[in-house]
Amino acid sequence: MDNLKERALELHKKIQGKISTELKTKLEDKDDLSLVYSPGVAEPCKKIHENEEDAYVYTGKANTIAIISDGSAVLGLGDIGAAAALPVMEGKACLFKKFGGLNAVPLVINTNDTEEIIKFVKQVSPTFGGINLEDISSPRCIEIETRLKEELDIPVFHDDQHGTAIVTIAALINSLKLVGKKPEDCNVVISGVGAAGSSIVRMLNDFGINDIFAFNSKGILKESEEYSKDLYNKLARETNKENKDYSLEEAMRNADIFVGVSVPNKISKEMVKSMKDNPIILAMANPDPEITYEDAKEAGARIVGTGRSDYPNQVNNVLAFPGLFKGALSVHASAITEKMKITAARAIASLISDEELKDDYVIPSPFDMRVADVVAKAVADCAKEEGISQK
Amino acid sequence: MDNLKERALELHKKIQGKISTELKTKLEDKDDLSLVYSPGVAEPCKKIHENEEDAYVYTGKANTIAIISDGSAVLGLGDIGAAAALPVMEGKACLFKKFGGLNAVPLVINTNDTEEIIKFVKQVSPTFGGINLEDISSPRCIEIETRLKEELDIPVFHDDQHGTAIVTIAALINSLKLVGKKPEDCNVVISGVGAAGSSIVRMLNDFGINDIFAFNSKGILKESEEYSKDLYNKLARETNKENKDYSLEEAMRNADIFVGVSVPNKISKEMVKSMKDNPIILAMANPDPEITYEDAKEAGARIVGTGRSDYPNQVNNVLAFPGLFKGALSVHASAITEKMKITAARAIASLISDEELKDDYVIPSPFDMRVADVVAKAVADCAKEEGISQK
Repeated sequence: MDNLKERALELHKKIQGKISTELKTKLEDKDDLSLVYSPGVAEPCKKIHENEEDAYVYTGKANTIAIISDGSAVLGLGDIGAAAALPVMEGKACLFKKFGGLNAVPLVINTNDTEEIIKFVKQVSPTFGGINLEDISSPRCIEIETRLKEELDIPVFHDDQHGTAIVTIAALINSLKLVGKKPEDCNVVISGVGAAGSSIVRMLNDFGINDIFAFNSKGILKESEEYSKDLYNKLARETNKENKDYSLEEAMRNADIFVGVSVPNKISKEMVKSMKDNPIILAMANPDPEITYEDAKEAGARIVGTGRSDYPNQVNNVLAFPGLFKGALSVHASAITEKMKITAARAIASLISDEELKDDYVIPSPFDMRVADVVAKAVADCAKEEGISQK
Repeated sequence: MDNLKERALELHKKIQGKISTELKTKLEDKDDLSLVYSPGVAEPCKKIHENEEDAYVYTGKANTIAIISDGSAVLGLGDIGAAAALPVMEGKACLFKKFGGLNAVPLVINTNDTEEIIKFVKQVSPTFGGINLEDISSPRCIEIETRLKEELDIPVFHDDQHGTAIVTIAALINSLKLVGKKPEDCNVVISGVGAAGSSIVRMLNDFGINDIFAFNSKGILKESEEYSKDLYNKLARETNKENKDYSLEEAMRNADIFVGVSVPNKISKEMVKSMKDNPIILAMANPDPEITYEDAKEAGARIVGTGRSDYPNQVNNVLAFPGLFKGALSVHASAITEKMKITAARAIASLISDEELKDDYVIPSPFDMRVADVVAKAVADCAKEEGISQK
């Protein structure tokens, strides 16, 4: 691990920025200059001035997104600020390009104010075909995304919320197929109800799960309780149908599936043992999961996924966001809807055939280069069906 | 010309964006992913969190600038708005890369409000090593640049103001050498006192010109007059030392040099004929100059420059901005000062040797690939002398 740290620093120091801007056309003589810049450039300008939709025809708006962060909730590092978040955003831009073929521009901004971030994104939106919000702390991230979705006509997506949720659902689609259960027969315990957790709850409900027991660090959410955070009150209404006062131990006894987006070592082997038949464990705390792959397996878990690349079933949101944006931009979708997210999850799951599917292979590898295109196609078709595409 | 228009549209349609973001490092396997992204990326983040200056060591801040425009004063097109301005900003990004080797990110923003633009630029500034403001209308552009220079610790440069000014001074340095005059013996008539004109006036004074007669569309600026625009009052104080009430004809009779950043056909052959010996004409209205090259020459002008690529002595700001930013970024300069601008002008002029220098060759060609490096070196040295470099 120390070696990795050193190598990472060395690489970053050597290349000073993980992405570059490059010319897509030659610029060798005066004729090139007159096409790329003045006076020829006036022609596409005039076209777009007449019809703003033509920005998709003549500029990079068609294939370029912004990755916007205030650096307030960076990976495991927390609120490290805009400047320090830039390496992560550059890395994300690499993933967008590598897997989705999209141009992505990191923009780190030095304000944490919800209204100012919303205004900033709206101001810069003519430049981009989509906005990926990244590493903005909860609950501001939810307010910011919700408002921007209402106020902008390009896709806005907070990956920390929905990326993990989509891949979680993909993993569950294949896991339930393996264990022969239906969503409506399953209960889920979810530990962690921040940005990712709240999106997972919503998608689990859309997916048709019977009941969800959602835990924050204090205990189970229930509607009879009054929380200071609006988000908790909302989630309490969307989960725990019978207003149970379960401890984590009790909830686990009644669960088919455990989903963790919280902290290391949150659940014990005994809890896994107590679950219903064929336990499914998606323990995604990073880098150390809520229970290790080995412990979960020893305790009888049938399927175990984590956020780690060194174990089977890595729940990695790189499976979702490149294809999702690629598909949305390909048809100039004005948004990324709930249905497009579920469609993306189904597309990811579909890449593993019934013959290939097994306990240790319910999610494709992050380097499965088929994924983004299959997701993109499905998402584009879905946007068309939903009537939110311009193409 | 019509053919050029068609070809320009065709090119823009074919490539959909003139720049792309590309990976600077390989991303082929899990080890690469762990260096470029999680978990390795946390290491440079931590370094920058400890010491923000390390952003220059580990990220693209060292070599990336933003090109920011509200689309309010685009080339000859005027206030066409953010979306329609994007092709120009992409073209500019191509020039920054081609000539300066810098990554440049176009950001078009849909606000014209001075305070909001200032706030926007400040918010996004942690991402970039420098800010190039572009095609923002006067006089807001001057207020915006002035304030940002005060409030930011990275170079901020409004190219429409200073780019043309720097190349104008470069042209004059060589022109005066040819005609054997000194700045302090010369009077200049300048037509057009918007963004570019006001910066030219300032640089002419720094250059040591004897007197300047500045004309807006209504007539000569003079200190005894009260103008509604602050900019005009300021320029009136910086020009026309004896508060003359000259018409353009009268001013031209007393001028050695004419500088035009105004409108086509502003001056006549008779005016050129009436000038002092060896008239120098820099007629930079685009695409049609204040007087054509042919007419100026016929009227006895010794040296004629225009903004056009199809005539000698093209005053093209691509000679200035790539090298200027390259030099400033190379030493992490906190600003671009007046002295750095004059230094850039001298560096541009220096590329033409005494043996090469002639009436039709006082400015290097825009495709002279030596220019940016020579300018960058001179500007970097100047920043160090001025004590505003961090490196």
